[in-house]
Amino acid sequence: MASIVLKRTQQKVTKSRCADTVYNAIKAGYRLLDGAGDYGNEKEAGEGVRRAIADGLVKREDLFITSKARNLIKHVGLYVLSGSLFYSYGTLSMPMIMSVKQITKMQLDLWGIDYFDLFLVHFPIALKYVDPSHRYPPEWFGDDGKVYTQNTPMHETWGAMEELVDEKLTKNIGLSNCQGSLILDVLRYAKYEPQVLQVELHPYLTQEALVKLCKTFSIAVTAYSSFGPQSYVELGIDKGAPSLLKHNVTSVAAKTHEKTEAQVLLRWATQRGIAVIPKSNDLGRLSANLDCNSFDLSESELAALSALNINLRLNDPADIDGRLAIFA
Amino acid sequence: MASIVLKRTQQKVTKSRCADTVYNAIKAGYRLLDGAGDYGNEKEAGEGVRRAIADGLVKREDLFITSKARNLIKHVGLYVLSGSLFYSYGTLSMPMIMSVKQITKMQLDLWGIDYFDLFLVHFPIALKYVDPSHRYPPEWFGDDGKVYTQNTPMHETWGAMEELVDEKLTKNIGLSNCQGSLILDVLRYAKYEPQVLQVELHPYLTQEALVKLCKTFSIAVTAYSSFGPQSYVELGIDKGAPSLLKHNVTSVAAKTHEKTEAQVLLRWATQRGIAVIPKSNDLGRLSANLDCNSFDLSESELAALSALNINLRLNDPADIDGRLAIFA
Repeated sequence: MASIVLKRTQQKVTKSRCADTVYNAIKAGYRLLDGAGDYGNEKEAGEGVRRAIADGLVKREDLFITSKARNLIKHVGLYVLSGSLFYSYGTLSMPMIMSVKQITKMQLDLWGIDYFDLFLVHFPIALKYVDPSHRYPPEWFGDDGKVYTQNTPMHETWGAMEELVDEKLTKNIGLSNCQGSLILDVLRYAKYEPQVLQVELHPYLTQEALVKLCKTFSIAVTAYSSFGPQSYVELGIDKGAPSLLKHNVTSVAAKTHEKTEAQVLLRWATQRGIAVIPKSNDLGRLSANLDCNSFDLSESELAALSALNINLRLNDPADIDGRLAIFA
Repeated sequence: MASIVLKRTQQKVTKSRCADTVYNAIKAGYRLLDGAGDYGNEKEAGEGVRRAIADGLVKREDLFITSKARNLIKHVGLYVLSGSLFYSYGTLSMPMIMSVKQITKMQLDLWGIDYFDLFLVHFPIALKYVDPSHRYPPEWFGDDGKVYTQNTPMHETWGAMEELVDEKLTKNIGLSNCQGSLILDVLRYAKYEPQVLQVELHPYLTQEALVKLCKTFSIAVTAYSSFGPQSYVELGIDKGAPSLLKHNVTSVAAKTHEKTEAQVLLRWATQRGIAVIPKSNDLGRLSANLDCNSFDLSESELAALSALNINLRLNDPADIDGRLAIFA
């Protein structure tokens, strides 16, 4: 399905342009929108969706809207979002802890929709609850700039996710940023199995074993950062590998098929059976990315791209805090 | 602590020589014995221990005895070892399911001791229970040669492990063959935190991130397969990399320090703060391995060995069955 990722921060879909980008993407034919509480642009993304529906471009049921939340926990009979009863700055008139249902409904309200098609555990990490009235999205750091973890086991998080399905707040649930052993553990206790795994995946990080595991258990894989270090390169951050969009292997294939380098990188994933969620604020590139399945790379082109693998992971929470080494 | 691994199968400590090897190792100065139910030689290893104690070489409290079990589960009020009520071939007079306590006591009885110093979850994998009267160790494959998994979540296994501590059947508990995200999850629900992580670790698989994570949480790391593909090379199995014992980098350092290549590989680990458990049936090599901390590798020698890393994993249950991809 044609899809777009809505990540915030300067290299992603900016807040101010988000509504227009979503509207234009839908107009161009995009149907899957990949958002997250953490991206901080749910309201603007929803605005684009509502405008597209109002203008008759699509109906809600034509769209597949994904969102994500940090670890969800059950506490004193309530499900709360990365919550702690001990983190208090609320008033008596304001509940200090929102139930998972409340938090998810808040996210749905921001979007202006009444269900998600897919809701993901954003990271297998539990951070202390931050009341949305204090700061939303909660971010990685507390008010003092430190990271506060919390002992919320994954099986409690997953139980809370399953309740969202029962409450019809989301049609499907899934995981993001998880390793094989943790996925296997979730499968052992899941009432509803994860339908999707969203992970970083590009020719520098091909993730063969993880993709194979997901196929074995019929978990659909969605790749993020399909262009590899591109957004880091743009920001002048050296991630120790050249842009995949300017790599010779990509360029040669692009020239052969008269396609863009971006299209080649996306097709490399989709030919492996992996969904992609490229972002762009540029209308021309949005259309080009959407057209990424109109050609086939040869076996040798696919192999040459896969051979670029150096297990280069660009998004690793261990870089924020050593206690968050979810990819170790 | 001077240690030895007791792995069975033809390339490890053979059953017939096991008692003698253990006795000789203790005589040579070894104090840590690394065993497992799966190695199928607990009785023989215990025989060596008892002989050493009877001969006055050591007391029980001088030894540190490690064993391991497959996933432990709680079922119908009982803890059972990778158990299932539905796997039945017992008679009415024989309980078809042994409690975890019974299984661990059986392992202790085989050793002829009344506590382990360390008991590990051998793999984060749950296989169907096999009654010890039918087959012990249970092995990977059922009677029909197929692998039967079972939905035992890790948190239930860990709860059973914690009961072994409460029952004083083991002094410490730990994990083996686990990735970072699963360790972090165990830490979130553990009443008793894992004290040790035992993993494959050698210059072809340096595991920097995992070692760092363990240091952050004060989990001691024990390396297995310190000599890399050596035992596979001996069996004529090509693992795609030459023996580390004959590698130029190892040999040069060995020559410099007038030590064996094996000693260099062990010292590379211990200088990183990692425990080692080399095996040998050869008395000379047993003594040489024990002497691995009598010299220091230089920073550049350590770095040159670490630079051999190619993330080559030799022991991966995914090779047995795709559903066991615990390292994906």
